[in-house]
Amino acid sequence: MATVRLWTDEEVAADLRVRAVFEDIRATRKSEFVNNFWRALANQPALLERTWASVKEVMVAPGSLDPLTKELVYIAASTMNSCSYCIHSHTASARAKGLTERQQAEFVAVLGLAAETNALANAMQVPVDPEFTVG
Amino acid sequence: MATVRLWTDEEVAADLRVRAVFEDIRATRKSEFVNNFWRALANQPALLERTWASVKEVMVAPGSLDPLTKELVYIAASTMNSCSYCIHSHTASARAKGLTERQQAEFVAVLGLAAETNALANAMQVPVDPEFTVG
Amino acid sequence: MATVRLWTDEEVAADLRVRAVFEDIRATRKSEFVNNFWRALANQPALLERTWASVKEVMVAPGSLDPLTKELVYIAASTMNSCSYCIHSHTASARAKGLTERQQAEFVAVLGLAAETNALANAMQVPVDPEFTVG
Amino acid sequence: MATVRLWTDEEVAADLRVRAVFEDIRATRKSEFVNNFWRALANQPALLERTWASVKEVMVAPGSLDPLTKELVYIAASTMNSCSYCIHSHTASARAKGLTERQQAEFVAVLGLAAETNALANAMQVPVDPEFTVG
Amino acid sequence: MATVRLWTDEEVAADLRVRAVFEDIRATRKSEFVNNFWRALANQPALLERTWASVKEVMVAPGSLDPLTKELVYIAASTMNSCSYCIHSHTASARAKGLTERQQAEFVAVLGLAAETNALANAMQVPVDPEFTVG
Amino acid sequence: MATVRLWTDEEVAADLRVRAVFEDIRATRKSEFVNNFWRALANQPALLERTWASVKEVMVAPGSLDPLTKELVYIAASTMNSCSYCIHSHTASARAKGLTERQQAEFVAVLGLAAETNALANAMQVPVDPEFTVG
Repeated sequence: MATVRLWTDEEVAADLRVRAVFEDIRATRKSEFVNNFWRALANQPALLERTWASVKEVMVAPGSLDPLTKELVYIAASTMNSCSYCIHSHTASARAKGLTERQQAEFVAVLGLAAETNALANAMQVPVDPEFTVG
Repeated sequence: MATVRLWTDEEVAADLRVRAVFEDIRATRKSEFVNNFWRALANQPALLERTWASVKEVMVAPGSLDPLTKELVYIAASTMNSCSYCIHSHTASARAKGLTERQQAEFVAVLGLAAETNALANAMQVPVDPEFTVG
Repeated sequence: MATVRLWTDEEVAADLRVRAVFEDIRATRKSEFVNNFWRALANQPALLERTWASVKEVMVAPGSLDPLTKELVYIAASTMNSCSYCIHSHTASARAKGLTERQQAEFVAVLGLAAETNALANAMQVPVDPEFTVG
Repeated sequence: MATVRLWTDEEVAADLRVRAVFEDIRATRKSEFVNNFWRALANQPALLERTWASVKEVMVAPGSLDPLTKELVYIAASTMNSCSYCIHSHTASARAKGLTERQQAEFVAVLGLAAETNALANAMQVPVDPEFTVG
Repeated sequence: MATVRLWTDEEVAADLRVRAVFEDIRATRKSEFVNNFWRALANQPALLERTWASVKEVMVAPGSLDPLTKELVYIAASTMNSCSYCIHSHTASARAKGLTERQQAEFVAVLGLAAETNALANAMQVPVDPEFTVG
Repeated sequence: MATVRLWTDEEVAADLRVRAVFEDIRATRKSEFVNNFWRALANQPALLERTWASVKEVMVAPGSLDPLTKELVYIAASTMNSCSYCIHSHTASARAKGLTERQQAEFVAVLGLAAETNALANAMQVPVDPEFTVG
């Protein structure tokens, strides 16, 4: 159903630029599986390279937020943007990073509450308290 | 600018049902400050009670996700819903719970990347890989 | 703060096409007040005419949904789209059409619940039951 | 396609807490059919209980808004949040509550117009008229 | 999966009002193919007529923006609204109007960047520079 | 109102990494004015560098889409994401790149129509025609 072609492994192998990114994805993730998102981006090598570089820097490189927290932030954004693909792929990632059933239950509850109070605050157009502003 | 009236402390004091919720907010948070969101909800006592009960259960009660992670999930949702009030109030909450500048920088980077890849996946209508489905 | 100029009554009076729409707005609403939305659209006479014609047909003309229900549907959409202007203007409209405080409280509660369950259903990617499809 | 498991009737029967909610859903709706949303929430008993309690209070209990109006507000929110599941389930609910074809046609027209004027007001960043503010 | 019935050519032929719109769509587009969007709208003849009249005026009639630019604006909006149908149909339209692979790649990159910086600006609640306001 | 501090020119001058980006922004745009978005991002030098690099590559570097078309796509996305800052800043950019009043009028009309038909297609859950799929 994609609006662009999904590249097969054979097509990837035949394109130097795309192949280099796919090899780095496989090496970084220590897995042969490369999901459809990258096979769709392969149509646009510059964007493929830039997006993978960002994902490595933001999601993979060690930092001050732990990897599972980053995945939950990611799924939260994807849910509010109704990105079905992203919800599926990053829920799988979160599971692979150790998300327990109990954590998922709590996470989904936070998401639901956030959406509810977002709607309430927007519907009532509540003005920001001066206490919440910076500087 | 609110589309409903914001209750003053005097008005709150004069309403038994609203006062009980405000007292519980102050006791739970160990602070006299009650922000505008609750002053707007005071117009609707049943919703005020139910919303505060949910916030206590979901955000305050101890669980398997740490409180700061919950705040970040909350802000992620609020950003994608463009709820200015919620972004302000929960960024302040996250800071109060110890969010460092470096963590905030990483958090914002994850949010930006999620939004970008959400748009890419949606624009290309990437089909969900069977590997990502449950069961 | 608008990204386009808001037309004054003097400017409206000097433009035949815009003036005709403003006169019809005033006559239809039986009020001299014309809100900023139309003063912004005045920069684009064809769009002004078409939008006002749609508003008259959809919101003003009698039909099988009562006018207050239509306003609530309108505010619900505007809240989810975070259109601050639209929330303000149509909440005022709903009040003018008799929205009581109790009805507003119930309406806001429905909105909040819808947003919450939308987030839950999206986060869990619940598949549509066959019972819900048409035909 | 769900990111969580959907509980079967057998699994529901074997869990006291989940079973109690399902029995109340069936009794309240006077129908054996329990849709997938609740089968997905069954993974999270506390959220299941809280969500069903909210739905009963907000959507089922008699109030000052009639049940069909509440369903239309619900679908409006769900459409703007692109929640396919919610649009399907609540359109079915609205039909069960007597939504006529003519009402649905008018409802959809209001939704479309709201979305259009939301985009126009946002694109032009129309400032809120002082006449629309409360207090 | 639609929540309304999709009209067949036979049903269209039997309804004078709907048939007139379908004939105009075919004549305008010089093609016998009429896509599902119009077959769904056929349930609501007044909305069908008004929507087609708007599409003709806005998307088909010659103006100062070229037709391909309009399609890209359309897809950008549809992507952010997660309207899967609209993304598919207007990407097909854009291709029919000559969108090259290279242009699509650049377009998707702009969309992704816009979504990312939208999230960043919203998350940080950046205040509008006075230099950007009109008048 | 920002949730982060906006850097002054003095602070920028005192930080080598941030200063380098600001100098490149000024040189690329041939203007001393640096807008608040970059002053907010200055708190996060790695994100500042990466975001400016992306903006240069996607929005500034010559390609197969003309610069004004890119701005319109950008504003369309920002409008649907209700990013007030982004709508203001990129409408100013589009004007600087020659957007005429007539083009803006047509653009806004396309946006409004897209939002309307997005809502209609979503509300009716119109299934994608097989003719619109790739491959």
